[in-house]
Order: sequence, then structure tokens, then C-alpha cells
Amino acid sequence: MVDSWANLGVDLHLDLGRSGVRKGLTDALRDAVRGGRLTPGTRLPSSRSLAADLGIARNTVADAYADLVAEGWLTARQGSGTRVAERTVPAPKTPRPAPRRAAKVTYDLHPGSPDVSSFPRTEWAKATRRALLAAPHDAFDYGDPRGRLELRTALADYLSRARGVHAEPDRIVITAGFVGALQLLARVLRTRGATSVAVESYGLAHHWQHLTDEGLAIPPLPLDGLGTRTEALGAEGALLITPAHQFPLGNPLAPARRAQAVDWARRTGGVILEDDYDGEFRYDRQAVGALQGLDPDRVVYCGTASKSLAPALRIGWLVLPADLAAQVAEAKGVSDWQSSAVDQLALADFLTSGAYDHHVRGMRLKYRRRRDEFVAALAARAPHVRVSGIAAGLHAVLDLPPGTEQSVLRAAAWRGVHVQGLGFFRHPEATTPPRDGLVVGYGTPPDHAWAGALEALCGVLS
Amino acid sequence: MVDSWANLGVDLHLDLGRSGVRKGLTDALRDAVRGGRLTPGTRLPSSRSLAADLGIARNTVADAYADLVAEGWLTARQGSGTRVAERTVPAPKTPRPAPRRAAKVTYDLHPGSPDVSSFPRTEWAKATRRALLAAPHDAFDYGDPRGRLELRTALADYLSRARGVHAEPDRIVITAGFVGALQLLARVLRTRGATSVAVESYGLAHHWQHLTDEGLAIPPLPLDGLGTRTEALGAEGALLITPAHQFPLGNPLAPARRAQAVDWARRTGGVILEDDYDGEFRYDRQAVGALQGLDPDRVVYCGTASKSLAPALRIGWLVLPADLAAQVAEAKGVSDWQSSAVDQLALADFLTSGAYDHHVRGMRLKYRRRRDEFVAALAARAPHVRVSGIAAGLHAVLDLPPGTEQSVLRAAAWRGVHVQGLGFFRHPEATTPPRDGLVVGYGTPPDHAWAGALEALCGVLS
Repeated sequence: MVDSWANLGVDLHLDLGRSGVRKGLTDALRDAVRGGRLTPGTRLPSSRSLAADLGIARNTVADAYADLVAEGWLTARQGSGTRVAERTVPAPKTPRPAPRRAAKVTYDLHPGSPDVSSFPRTEWAKATRRALLAAPHDAFDYGDPRGRLELRTALADYLSRARGVHAEPDRIVITAGFVGALQLLARVLRTRGATSVAVESYGLAHHWQHLTDEGLAIPPLPLDGLGTRTEALGAEGALLITPAHQFPLGNPLAPARRAQAVDWARRTGGVILEDDYDGEFRYDRQAVGALQGLDPDRVVYCGTASKSLAPALRIGWLVLPADLAAQVAEAKGVSDWQSSAVDQLALADFLTSGAYDHHVRGMRLKYRRRRDEFVAALAARAPHVRVSGIAAGLHAVLDLPPGTEQSVLRAAAWRGVHVQGLGFFRHPEATTPPRDGLVVGYGTPPDHAWAGALEALCGVLS
Repeated sequence: MVDSWANLGVDLHLDLGRSGVRKGLTDALRDAVRGGRLTPGTRLPSSRSLAADLGIARNTVADAYADLVAEGWLTARQGSGTRVAERTVPAPKTPRPAPRRAAKVTYDLHPGSPDVSSFPRTEWAKATRRALLAAPHDAFDYGDPRGRLELRTALADYLSRARGVHAEPDRIVITAGFVGALQLLARVLRTRGATSVAVESYGLAHHWQHLTDEGLAIPPLPLDGLGTRTEALGAEGALLITPAHQFPLGNPLAPARRAQAVDWARRTGGVILEDDYDGEFRYDRQAVGALQGLDPDRVVYCGTASKSLAPALRIGWLVLPADLAAQVAEAKGVSDWQSSAVDQLALADFLTSGAYDHHVRGMRLKYRRRRDEFVAALAARAPHVRVSGIAAGLHAVLDLPPGTEQSVLRAAAWRGVHVQGLGFFRHPEATTPPRDGLVVGYGTPPDHAWAGALEALCGVLS
């Protein structure tokens, strides 16, 4: 037997050094015990096994063991072999940090996260098991940069059915969430000669940052009651937009503005990047389909599992025009920003088995119920506050009297309520007059914390 | 009931258009059937449910259904509701590509991949399940850029025990495989003012590419029988090296050269990037510990699950000096190159439960058996071929007479044997005289293909 350490169920690296084999082994074992790498009670391999393992004489090992028993580091007893003595005290190690505690935010109403306490753990475990057992061997190797075909096929069906997206597996690229998608798109747009990407007057600065990191300018489009004024588009190479549910304002882009964006793209050769981050969660009667359906050769559809399932999966997807699909796949192959194949296969199973629809349906009911409770509570407790952006998604906007946003944010923080102000999302060069307001993520808290969070928020506003 | 489509287990997006509700619904449903989005036999929601869902009158839905039954798109039968007619022929769609078949390589002896057919699917599914059920809620949210603490803690124990690495969870950053780690390191080194990273005369061009992409020069170090000549290090800001098992040559770095590298780093403030890609797989008696153990404040240890488990997980890890740990974590937070939290938790469970040791042990025995069969077969069939680099890892180098590498590669390709020549791995500016040889990945084939692959390779060489 050679792999005797292995037979103990552990691998242990021993540096025997050069000062004689017996002394080297004795020192190495002592260091391992002293340093805590061999813990009290651990059974050591037989001298025969360790000798074979290390390629030294059996007697040398037996001698080293005897030395260490004599020193008190090991104990030897008939029938139970040689073990690390129970009374050895490992040298103090840097204390291990405790698992990260939730930040001291008492009520987390931060927009952008789903209720992660509702992640379907058991169903996901089942899907993972089914997917693992059914996968071909090559699923575990370095893979197609576009992502697993099983997932791209399942997404093509789902997106066509649920979001009106014209999707074929060949035009889908799986990404590490929306941010991973945006990095790839920025790189490819730059390679194609784009120098600027029009963005909305309100959005996420860390998204814009990935565009500027690639050297792209990010001029903001103005905004009015119908949404982002896409008729103001000019010579930009691309447009990044949230048409179904503007983030963070929450309104859908008006039909005329949708048409104008597509007209612009056709006229100028521009590309529309449609960020459909929470398209699954619509509560109004008339659904807002994906803009991509209007012109699949001009619109890149960007979806994500971060809101419908969990950010921790780091899985998103792009549905691309054919030429861009090839370029994005190539850029992804070079960068090697891949998502876990196991999760990709599990998500494919989740989609095809109906578990995804089931989960989304349950979450939609939950979020809609919260939305209704939220609106009702505000109407009762803070009737002066106008709520908007509530037809879809996981967050709402509360308009505040001009000039009061900062003071309300301070009051919220003082009461342990974590929300964000509209100012946080405003483009630094936006020309639209600033609007004071709170962006409240009512999807974020776990169920048990929801009532308390809502009560605390009303306390801030009433 | 509102979510009636949902109650069918499907979500379906319908664009009702503007030309009257009844006509709009009829058209939308017809399009969905014609386009294949509603497949034959699918049961439609009751008119009451769909009407509630869409916020229109029930009679309107019933009328639309009746129209489509009259047109032959739907069928209605007492007791089984309204369904998509079985004889509808969906409009032809772009045919779905067949699942990717293995490339036409008959015998894959390409170095750099493990035997992915041995991925421990059942055990991994169990670990995933245990991890999913035990995880705190915040595991499913956007997470710590360093990666899950559970995994960093498990790795600190494992790397200390099995590889002699000085590892604390705070100094570990989880990455998307080694390539993800290299991209982060290149970015951080550049930010710290480095302009060049010394590399080995033989290595992987796509690794070097990530350094040059960040604007770093990659001067090659010369090579001799003791390994890479680290005494030739000068003003470079960093060194990228494979000390335990040079890739692809297969020799360990001599002790004196290890010491010289560390001395250089201490003297100049340079950083050593230790790529320990297959440190788990050593077959010789005396283990080669991690260089990092010599000076944890100068050496960045880079490990990966790609060889020990599967490339498809895209999980690697860095053990860093404290200052670099903070900088790499920050760069990772900005770039958002995260690995799946589910896989991270599963790997943590795999390590702490002993399943990782068990798997590595089994694979080590398998690879060593293959290595022995490989050496024996070559000794018998091609005794003129010198085999080297076989003390560890999943590949070996076969030296060829000068000037014959290309013709042997052609002969191999003709017989369907996929191997690579040493020339593929040679640094374009290497000064060491070129060496003709094959790099053979004996770890790559699945078990059932191994004997045939070995036979075919011997056929090429004998």
C-alpha cells in the first residue's frame, strides 16, 4: 500500500528537509502537530504504510514515531495505533473571522435584489441532481464559449413564450449576469468602432462605468412622462435602455418611443441594448413585451436569473443579432468569463421541467401581495406621498417634496431603514430637472421582516 | 383567478395590438400557434381565467376561441377544454442545432484536461444538496467579492494540510479558474506600477496573452536541466512560474532555483505568481510542496479545481500577501467576475466532508496506473522515445529527434491522435534551443478510450 495517508482520508504535505531522514521526519511531524495541521486524536498511518508512501525504511518511521511519543506529541496504544496526543495545544493561529453577519441595516429595502430567502433550494438541488446525472461527459470540460446548448435551447423556448423574444439557441450567449454581458458588449461595440452609448437619465452608475472603462462616452437621453426621449437619439453607436420597466423610475417606455428607438437603430445602424432585468414580474393586465420582438436584428435582449432566482448564480443571457452573436461569443472565449456548467445545466432543467415557471409564478404572487400592502399602507399612513412605478418589478418610487430627499434619507437611516434616493441613480450630466424621491425595494426583505420594514418606512414618511 | 396562464404551468406573452380587443386576441393566439410558441395539444386557459388575466370581458375571450376553433387552429371538446389543434403545422423555424458532437478527434490525448468522464456526479449532487439546505439566506444574494467564506475556510485547511501553503481565509480570493485569477492579477500588478512579468520559456500563450492585454511585457527566462533559470531574474515586477510541475515540460523546479526566486522577490519587491495547476497529482515519493510556503508575503499561490475536479466549474483560488489580497478583492468587486455561490458552497462541503480527498485519491491512483501503462507501452513499442515529466500530473513529454516534430504531429493527426508538439508551447522570444517533442495528456481520455488511445499513439511512434 502506498497511499496510506490517503487511506486515512487525508492528504498531508511533509517537508522532510535534509538533515537526516529520521530527524527530518520527526521535525516535520512535530511541526504538523504543533501548527495544528494534525489535530488531536488524528490517527497516523502505520509505520509500514507511511514508509512505503515516503520511500524510506519502515524502521525510520517507527523510530520517529517513538521519538514523538517520548516527547508527548503522539500516543501509541495496542489496537488503536498511533495518534496525535489529545493534550497537544496547537500554536495559536490567526483567529478565523466569524461568518459575515448581515450589515447593521435593520430593514433592508434596498432596490435591485430579490427576496433571496425564497430561493427554491430543494427544487434547485433536485434540478442539479437530474442535470448532473443526465449530462454528457463533455459538460464537465472546458465548454462552448456561448454556454451550454441545453440552456440556450431551453431559454429560446422560454423567452419566446414568456417575453415575446425572437430567440434561437445559436443567437444566445450565456453570461456571468448582466454585468458580465455588459462588459462583453462594451468590448465588442468598441471593436466595431462605436465611440458612445446613449444611456437613460436615471440608471446604475456601475453599469455605465463598464462602458466608460472601455473608452465609450455615455451621453444621457432626456426624459419625460412617456419615458426616455428616444427621438433625441443621434450619432451614438448604441443605446442602453430598460424599456419594460425603467430602472429605477419604474415606468414602461411608451409605444411611440419604442418605435422611435427601433427606427433610429434601422436608420443609423445603431444597436439597442435592452436590459430586461425584471421582465418576469409584471402585475398590470397588459403585458409589456420585449422590444427585441420589434426588430431582432437591431436589438440585443439582455436577461438575467438574478431577479427571478438569485444573484448568486451569476447567470445572465443575451439574445443577439447573428453578427453580434459571433463577435460576443469570440470575446467571451478570449476572456474566459464563463458561468458554472453545473448551474447552467440545472437552470436548463429548471426551465424545461416547469419549475422555473412555478417559481416565478409564486414569487410574482408574493411580490404583488407586498406591492398591494405597500400601496395600502402608504395610502393610510402617508397619504401625501405619491407612489409610482408599481405596475411591475420589485421596487417603487416615492416622490418627495423638492429639496427633502436628503433629509428623508437621513431620517430613514436613523431608523435603520435602508432605501436609496433618486439622486443616487441620476446621470451626472442629465438635463432633466432633478426629482426628489425614494427608491424602495419591496422585494428585498425576507417574509418575516417584511411587515416590520413596511412599518418602519411608514414611520419615516408619516 | 388572475394568473391563469401561470396555472397552466406556462407563461405566454401576448401582444394584443390596437385593432379591437377581440381581433387583437384572435390574431395574437393565431400567431402563437402558427409560430410554434403554442404547441399542438397545449391546453388553453378557461375563457374566464384568460379574461381575468388580460383584464378583458369573458365573452371576448370566448368569441376569440370560437373564431379560432372555426379556423381550425384550436379544438374545443366537452370536458377537455380548449386545446391547440393537433393538425396545426407550425411555421418552419430555423432547425435547432444538434447537441455538439465530440470533434472528429478519435483519440484525445490533448494535455490540460482531466478525465472529465470521472467527475463525481453523484457525490457532487449530494454536496450541492447539503450545501443548499445549510446555507444562510445571504448566500443567494450578491456576495463578498473574495468569494464565500465557507469555501475560503475549507481551502485554508486543505491547502495547509495537503500543499504546505500558509493560508488564512482572509488572504484567499476565489476566482473563475486560473484565467480569471490571472486577469485580476495582471490588472492589479499594472495598477501597482509593474511593466513586465517574467515567464517561462515554455508555457501557455493564452495565459501570456492576458498579461500583454494589460500592457505588461512578458520576457522569457532561460531554461536548463534544473528548470527555469530564476537567477536570471532582473527588474521584472513579477514572475509567473509552475514550480511543482513545469507546464508542459513536467520537471520540478530545483531547490536552489526555488530559493533564488524567493531571494529575488525579497531583494527587488517582485511578486511570484505560483501556478500550482496540478499539485494534487504527484506520484513520486518525495512531495514537492508549494513555493508559497517559503515566503507567503512574496508568493501568490494559484490553485484550481479544473484539474482535480472539472474545468466546467470555473473555480480557482488565490492565496495572497495581505496587501495584494485587498487589491485583488477590490478589482474583483469592480469587475464582478464571480463564481457561482452554489458551486462554491458545494466545493466547501466537498472539502470538509472528505469527498475531495477521496476523489483526488481515486484519480491519483487512476492517473498513476495510466502513467505506468503509458511508460511500459512506450518501452515495449517505441524504446527509442525518451519519456520525461512523469513524476506528477496528467501529461508527459516524449522527446523526438531534432526536426521531426512536425512530421510526427502530421502522422498523429492522420491516425486521429490528438496531441500537441512542444513548439506550440514555446515562447516566441525564448533563447533556449528548441526541443522537438510531443506533449501527451494521458489524463484526458475516458477509461473506455484509454487503451485504444495508447495503442494508436504507439502506432504513430513505433
